[in-house]
Amino acid sequence: MARTQGEGGTALVFGASGGIGRAFADALLQKPEVTRVLGTSRDPARLAESVEPIALDVGDPLSISRAGDEIRQIAQELDLVLYCIGILHDDEHGLAPEKRVEDVDPAAVAHSFAVNALAPLLLARELAHLLPRRARCIWGNLSARVGSIGDNRMGGWYSYRASKAAQNMVTRNLAIELGRRHRGLACIALHPGTVATPLSAPFRSADAEGVVTPEEAVENLLAVIDGLTAKDTGKFFAWDGSEIPW
Amino acid sequence: MARTQGEGGTALVFGASGGIGRAFADALLQKPEVTRVLGTSRDPARLAESVEPIALDVGDPLSISRAGDEIRQIAQELDLVLYCIGILHDDEHGLAPEKRVEDVDPAAVAHSFAVNALAPLLLARELAHLLPRRARCIWGNLSARVGSIGDNRMGGWYSYRASKAAQNMVTRNLAIELGRRHRGLACIALHPGTVATPLSAPFRSADAEGVVTPEEAVENLLAVIDGLTAKDTGKFFAWDGSEIPW
Repeated sequence: MARTQGEGGTALVFGASGGIGRAFADALLQKPEVTRVLGTSRDPARLAESVEPIALDVGDPLSISRAGDEIRQIAQELDLVLYCIGILHDDEHGLAPEKRVEDVDPAAVAHSFAVNALAPLLLARELAHLLPRRARCIWGNLSARVGSIGDNRMGGWYSYRASKAAQNMVTRNLAIELGRRHRGLACIALHPGTVATPLSAPFRSADAEGVVTPEEAVENLLAVIDGLTAKDTGKFFAWDGSEIPW
Repeated sequence: MARTQGEGGTALVFGASGGIGRAFADALLQKPEVTRVLGTSRDPARLAESVEPIALDVGDPLSISRAGDEIRQIAQELDLVLYCIGILHDDEHGLAPEKRVEDVDPAAVAHSFAVNALAPLLLARELAHLLPRRARCIWGNLSARVGSIGDNRMGGWYSYRASKAAQNMVTRNLAIELGRRHRGLACIALHPGTVATPLSAPFRSADAEGVVTPEEAVENLLAVIDGLTAKDTGKFFAWDGSEIPW
């Protein structure tokens, strides 16, 4: 089982009550080599029972630093960290994927940047030193193919695309900086495919081809994660292991 | 002079009192085919005399919409638009290029996103319909090679790099969307090289090789711009005309 040794010990899932995050937490709890799963949620009561609950609202920098404190108090080391929080549409902030530039709203763009790009950076600032120095470890940020600039043929979705491009730069930067100290680290961006979650719900038809359940997406992504080594750090992988251009 | 026809008519320079923007305004005023140059500044008194002054603080969405109103009132059409505003360090907002993830400050990151990525998007929302529908026209956003995710080997500078990656996605998205309506448009990201301006001052030695004056940078970039056609839209060009990966 050499391929799965990297997920050993302690796993931390940001957004563990959401569609993909919840499925990650459930799948990791089934792995014999995973001894504990910490999970965050804005509403920790919604987390699965075996997950160690952490309250976190990534739209609020103060909540991020509090969650950082709490995680440092209960965990000595983090072997697998997955950022599974993303915002595409949000009624509360008036955020909907923009079809045209005329639809762009400054507050909605700023909120997308905060949740999709700034938050994983601030969480890395809080917690990166808990990654082991020598052992294999993973920091994975859930990105999306539509966050690829080079692959962009359709346009639209300004807030989401631009914030994911910024997140991808954050991932690349963290890979470079943290890799100097954590020699077994693979810090990577992951595209889960089109997953049947509330995020994608308004944008797919019920019988759309290629739509997978969160459980299927997580099975695919864990196979990718299991195969990662430090040589893969700083890259952007799709659910099938293929590399996506920036 | 077919190569320069695209800068004919009306040019608009955002940040026309700054290092590169001012040099662009000066150079464009010398071109016989440029009939007028509109320029923005937070302090319009600092603009060159022949520039038509527009007050604009791109950190403030309200100022952006006011400037949009003003420009629409005085210009029927924009043939060349250059976004020459960028922020790398700013004492007022406590922003300095981060050497390490520990240096990241949420407010400084948010301000970088606002100035470097959101503002050119909001300005396009205000003004893109002033681009001609059929004639050759240019919308150029000043980016930077350090905003390339694929070219990133050094890490650091989180705010600047991530906000420029987001800006690059905005440029690409605008190229796709606006290109459907404005068939002669080249909407591109530009890397000026290392230019002797206040932006780069703390980060270059006095005798650093490859540092150019704003006038030299603008001469280089205008040669690139002169050669652009609609086929080049959605790309990222360096000062020497070479393409930079995303």
